Amino acid sequence: MLAQTVNRGRIIMGRLDRGADLLASLEQICFDENIRLGEIRAIGAVSRARVGYYRQAEQAYSYIEIPGAHEIIGLLGNISLRDGRPFVHAHISLMDEEGKMVGGHLAQGTIVFACEFTITELISAPSDDSFARRHDRNTGLYLWSDGGKR
Amino acid sequence: MLAQTVNRGRIIMGRLDRGADLLASLEQICFDENIRLGEIRAIGAVSRARVGYYRQAEQAYSYIEIPGAHEIIGLLGNISLRDGRPFVHAHISLMDEEGKMVGGHLAQGTIVFACEFTITELISAPSDDSFARRHDRNTGLYLWSDGGKR
Amino acid sequence: MLAQTVNRGRIIMGRLDRGADLLASLEQICFDENIRLGEIRAIGAVSRARVGYYRQAEQAYSYIEIPGAHEIIGLLGNISLRDGRPFVHAHISLMDEEGKMVGGHLAQGTIVFACEFTITELISAPSDDSFARRHDRNTGLYLWSDGGKR
Repeated sequence: MLAQTVNRGRIIMGRLDRGADLLASLEQICFDENIRLGEIRAIGAVSRARVGYYRQAEQAYSYIEIPGAHEIIGLLGNISLRDGRPFVHAHISLMDEEGKMVGGHLAQGTIVFACEFTITELISAPSDDSFARRHDRNTGLYLWSDGGKR
Repeated sequence: MLAQTVNRGRIIMGRLDRGADLLASLEQICFDENIRLGEIRAIGAVSRARVGYYRQAEQAYSYIEIPGAHEIIGLLGNISLRDGRPFVHAHISLMDEEGKMVGGHLAQGTIVFACEFTITELISAPSDDSFARRHDRNTGLYLWSDGGKR
Repeated sequence: MLAQTVNRGRIIMGRLDRGADLLASLEQICFDENIRLGEIRAIGAVSRARVGYYRQAEQAYSYIEIPGAHEIIGLLGNISLRDGRPFVHAHISLMDEEGKMVGGHLAQGTIVFACEFTITELISAPSDDSFARRHDRNTGLYLWSDGGKR
């Protein structure tokens, strides 16, 4: 496991435009602002969504298309480097017109109707690359360092 | 779109009383504490709830009454000025006794059983009114400034 | 109700190991790091889960076993002292392979597949024990001080 104290950076607050790809837009902001580590929170609405589910036994994602207008009940995610570039890992929950909820791992293909976000930049020590994502054989995922035994 | 660096203000943590209106209580705290921009997070339980769903094509909210006791699985929201007064925009997810989830845009009529919240005050530059809500013709919603092309 | 300004402490970011108990691991980190007040956010996946639902009329929790792999769509929680020891109160939402969501009050027996968390330490005034949990007869829950009338 990894449990490491990090420092506070900037807070960036804003909104995305109707028609934008939600995940691609968040990653573009992180790239433009050079955010290498951080957290994201957002609410809003989408005109359609696409989410992933990780099949743990097969070590592969399945993707689900969610057509139609949904509220974004909550987007929670983090930012870290993968292959030297800011990578957004976010999960999203959505609600349809009857209140029913669906959700998953946010994938490209989720289209913004309106989205209000906050990004908190976090800063680790300059020589620390614990938060760079690397392939983890145990799960098949790209994870942060395990920080050694504890 | 809008993506703007804001400064940290106070953090206010607390809990709401049983029987209080969840949305009205949060707005009252923001008003009393003069919070003009910020974020809210909360968990807890409600005795009943009322949530909105935005019908994007009709540019109008529908409201859903959710009777009975539910856990608040997550409330995520923000605070900004609308007509010069602190306005809470929050989305909420709820769980019934079988674990099933419902959610939506938090509306008045959601009654607290117990609620633990954190409000993070954010501060934008004195002359900046990007985060004042104004009617947006494209969506029919009251949104923050689009910050110009990017 | 209670609405109190608290100060910022450390931010601890990290990930939990596959096979760990989610709630017990978060509490252990808070204990090891001596976090007496704070907030937690996390996303990830579990191999199975166990959540509580509070039956408000009976003032007792029911527990639901949720077998099988699920994404953690969002974990939101707080940390405060109960009987002098860091206590994690967290709610979690989960998604199955069809996107369907379930959730509840996080209980022991929820097993991590992967989990990325952020803990924000908060600090109240030294003599302030508003955030120590005590039994509340009105709800049957262990809550923070009600801070007197307001």
